[in-house]
Amino acid sequence: MNCIIAQSGGPTSVINSSIVGLVERNNELNIYKNVYAGLNGVQGILMEQIINMSDLSHDELQTFKYTPSSGLGSCRYKLKDFNEDETDYLKLLHILNRLDIKAFFYVGGNDSMDTIAKLNKYAKAKNIDIVFIGIPKTIDNDLMYTDHTPGFGSAAKFIATSVLETYLDSTVYIHNGVFILETMGRDTGWLTSSAALAEVDGEKCADLIYLPENPFDVDSFLEDVKKIYDQKQHAYIVVSEGIKDKNGDFMATANIKGSHDNFGHAQLGGAGNHLKELIISSGITTRVKVLELGVLQRCAMHISSQTDIDEAYMAGAKSLEYSKDSSNSGSMVAFKRIDNDSSYKCETYLIEADKVANHVKYLPTEWINERGNFVTEECLEYIRPLIMNQPKLKNSAYMPKYRVYHR
Amino acid sequence: MNCIIAQSGGPTSVINSSIVGLVERNNELNIYKNVYAGLNGVQGILMEQIINMSDLSHDELQTFKYTPSSGLGSCRYKLKDFNEDETDYLKLLHILNRLDIKAFFYVGGNDSMDTIAKLNKYAKAKNIDIVFIGIPKTIDNDLMYTDHTPGFGSAAKFIATSVLETYLDSTVYIHNGVFILETMGRDTGWLTSSAALAEVDGEKCADLIYLPENPFDVDSFLEDVKKIYDQKQHAYIVVSEGIKDKNGDFMATANIKGSHDNFGHAQLGGAGNHLKELIISSGITTRVKVLELGVLQRCAMHISSQTDIDEAYMAGAKSLEYSKDSSNSGSMVAFKRIDNDSSYKCETYLIEADKVANHVKYLPTEWINERGNFVTEECLEYIRPLIMNQPKLKNSAYMPKYRVYHR
Repeated sequence: MNCIIAQSGGPTSVINSSIVGLVERNNELNIYKNVYAGLNGVQGILMEQIINMSDLSHDELQTFKYTPSSGLGSCRYKLKDFNEDETDYLKLLHILNRLDIKAFFYVGGNDSMDTIAKLNKYAKAKNIDIVFIGIPKTIDNDLMYTDHTPGFGSAAKFIATSVLETYLDSTVYIHNGVFILETMGRDTGWLTSSAALAEVDGEKCADLIYLPENPFDVDSFLEDVKKIYDQKQHAYIVVSEGIKDKNGDFMATANIKGSHDNFGHAQLGGAGNHLKELIISSGITTRVKVLELGVLQRCAMHISSQTDIDEAYMAGAKSLEYSKDSSNSGSMVAFKRIDNDSSYKCETYLIEADKVANHVKYLPTEWINERGNFVTEECLEYIRPLIMNQPKLKNSAYMPKYRVYHR
Repeated sequence: MNCIIAQSGGPTSVINSSIVGLVERNNELNIYKNVYAGLNGVQGILMEQIINMSDLSHDELQTFKYTPSSGLGSCRYKLKDFNEDETDYLKLLHILNRLDIKAFFYVGGNDSMDTIAKLNKYAKAKNIDIVFIGIPKTIDNDLMYTDHTPGFGSAAKFIATSVLETYLDSTVYIHNGVFILETMGRDTGWLTSSAALAEVDGEKCADLIYLPENPFDVDSFLEDVKKIYDQKQHAYIVVSEGIKDKNGDFMATANIKGSHDNFGHAQLGGAGNHLKELIISSGITTRVKVLELGVLQRCAMHISSQTDIDEAYMAGAKSLEYSKDSSNSGSMVAFKRIDNDSSYKCETYLIEADKVANHVKYLPTEWINERGNFVTEECLEYIRPLIMNQPKLKNSAYMPKYRVYHR
């Protein structure tokens, strides 16, 4: 009997580590004869794009563990309700049966957990003997129930490091302009808040931080910028792409071209440029620079968190163990934080995938200061352990060495 | 007798290493009693913003060596011809004399070499006993005579690594769009060409690379993109901010707001977005993503080149030695490459600063392929040694540790 694993949704730096964790744990425990991998998620499995991961050498697995982005390829493929259209389900099960698959693992965010929940529901309804388990992954850290998600720590570390380095770059002159850094974070401020970790000589690099959880008020924003700029001839602002006004409308609406992805999400962009225009229009200064970190924040393995890599690995390895019990089908591996004084520890447990699917975990409002322009120390205490330790990736003398399997 | 050093122009990741090289070499040789540092370049020296670097401990110097961006602050301050206006010269010399300064070191690009040349000319004319020496620094690698400039290798490494990682990110789906990465490089393509170093499984990540040295032709560009996109459902394009049409006009003129900096350079931006509009208008695809690396490429110490750091250090250390001979005044420290079969070695020599000032070193046209859309292997052989070895910077468990002195 065999199992199969695939990746879905937007990539992270550490998503491949979960694959390697599962493959290596199976090499130890020999639960399945082969660990197959579907390329490009369910979409690729339906096209029978399948490889055998159990053939890979230790060296190949180590390189893959430290390769960013979905090395098995990905998809954004939403399964229909099987009562409406059973086609995909029948085809998928036909393929899985032919390969003697007894466990199906899907690494992804809440849309992928929707897929796990649907497949499990279908299997239950049809008495199919396959266990479906979800492995969490998203830089956004917005999955319910789990303390945090693999991928977030590395993105947070890249953001914090970039804030630190660009802060140094943006303050070299006697009179400096305003610097605005835009991070990802469509609905939640987890990524943006990590900017507050950046410090030089014990002082925060960022002056102002704006998250989607707190309604953005133009007047108090300009008041804050003016005060800081008058004082320092410089201001460093960090903003989430998804900041909203008090009516819940995106501030960067001017940049939304009405396009939506397959899951109905609006395509965002331009919050930083929006703030730039506000500052220039207000007359504070015309010297405003905007930097959008873009996809760099989800693939910068070279400055990832070893803690994040290890936890992604653990999520994969544990999912294999959980699959031995068929009653675990339809679950997602979740993280529980064990805080003992100063030491941080992370353990796994299971949560029903359909509780996670299509829900969003917001940054607690009590972690945002009263003025709505920064995060609290409690928030940083939450993030800090997740960015810990430098990645042990092997570099050549010149560049990092990476390996992908989906091409 | 003492000496003074200051930094000028745009920052690089390794500029502080030159300062530390000079200070540590003076600690060994005791040529000067104190190494002073002017904060914010000549502008700061004129305001008497001066500190003593000889007071710093070994640990402080080590942290500073691995701190990106101008840690002494910078300026863009153009000295007038002294025959027209002697004010700054008189004030500066008054301050230097009071501090018993016998050597003045300026770390910068071609505008800074203009300052060194002017000060030396003035000193010669007035029989002033101070040696003026330039230390090169620019990520653009566009200084004449020197084989390469400190700062370039680290920027090139960040660009190549970012191409590698964003290439992995932009190819995860079965059907991917076009990805455009925009690098700095107002007049020259040195930075952009380093994108060609990125490879996965022996294949180049970038499909097309466009440099300012080669006139950009819209028709052949669209032809090339269409061909690649039809074949792979993906194309990865790297473009310099400074690409020009056959008349020498910037392609991104739409984004130039007529603003010029103090040295008369046009402010650029938006070459990537310009290419995006061309692709969308041509009907090839609407799925085009643009990423501007912006200032990240000149401050990402965390992925810098140890070779570059060591060479910046050497430039600083050697400049101190050169200053013992007053006939060296008015010179810039330059690099000579010693190629012995496969081994790379770099030595210094001196070149007159006014030969470097206000000139530009272009990428040799024979290093651009015939189609004008990629660079040759010879170009990569030139760049490769410059990005070699991982930086030995000390990180805390969480983030890199940096220290600045100009605040």
